Amino acid sequence: MTTPLEDAMDTLIRIFYHYSGKEGDRNKLSKGELKELLTSELTDFLSGQKDPFLVDKIMNDLDSNKDNEVDFNEFVILVAALTVACNDFFEEHLKKEGF
Amino acid sequence: MTTPLEDAMDTLIRIFYHYSGKEGDRNKLSKGELKELLTSELTDFLSGQKDPFLVDKIMNDLDSNKDNEVDFNEFVILVAALTVACNDFFEEHLKKEGF
Repeated sequence: MTTPLEDAMDTLIRIFYHYSGKEGDRNKLSKGELKELLTSELTDFLSGQKDPFLVDKIMNDLDSNKDNEVDFNEFVILVAALTVACNDFFEEHLKKEGF
Repeated sequence: MTTPLEDAMDTLIRIFYHYSGKEGDRNKLSKGELKELLTSELTDFLSGQKDPFLVDKIMNDLDSNKDNEVDFNEFVILVAALTVACNDFFEEHLKKEGF
């Protein structure tokens, strides 16, 4: 019996490997795999974005060791940063509603 | 319609506020709230732990601004670190099985 938090952590691991295993090093996301993951799994996040270089920018920001691939640690940092950004938006929204 | 990754991010936000709202600053986890979150939501992770000071140690490590409370950014860093640790274990296991 797992908890929702354990399920969420498990989801992160499963999603990463689902895309990283498609080509090349199966423990890392190539730029194509990252793009596929973002467009398929973060549709709401990307739907408002019109920047054609967004995936290149995210790849550049994430790829701290500059091997042009994203490993699991780099991926988790992306998800953490996005979650913090969503949360900041949520807190701001609550403040406006007078909570 | 949300994706599993968006659901996972949503879960992190919901769990944090469920516990942080119990006492004091409702946007931060006190030591008691952190302990309750860890024992209720990461049961598998904590079940093998016998260190009575574990929660104090985690609090100390997370509380980067030393206010004796854990904010959402500090909480996400904990979850990211635990997920990376689980993933390292998973990769090691795959290697041993000859993948």
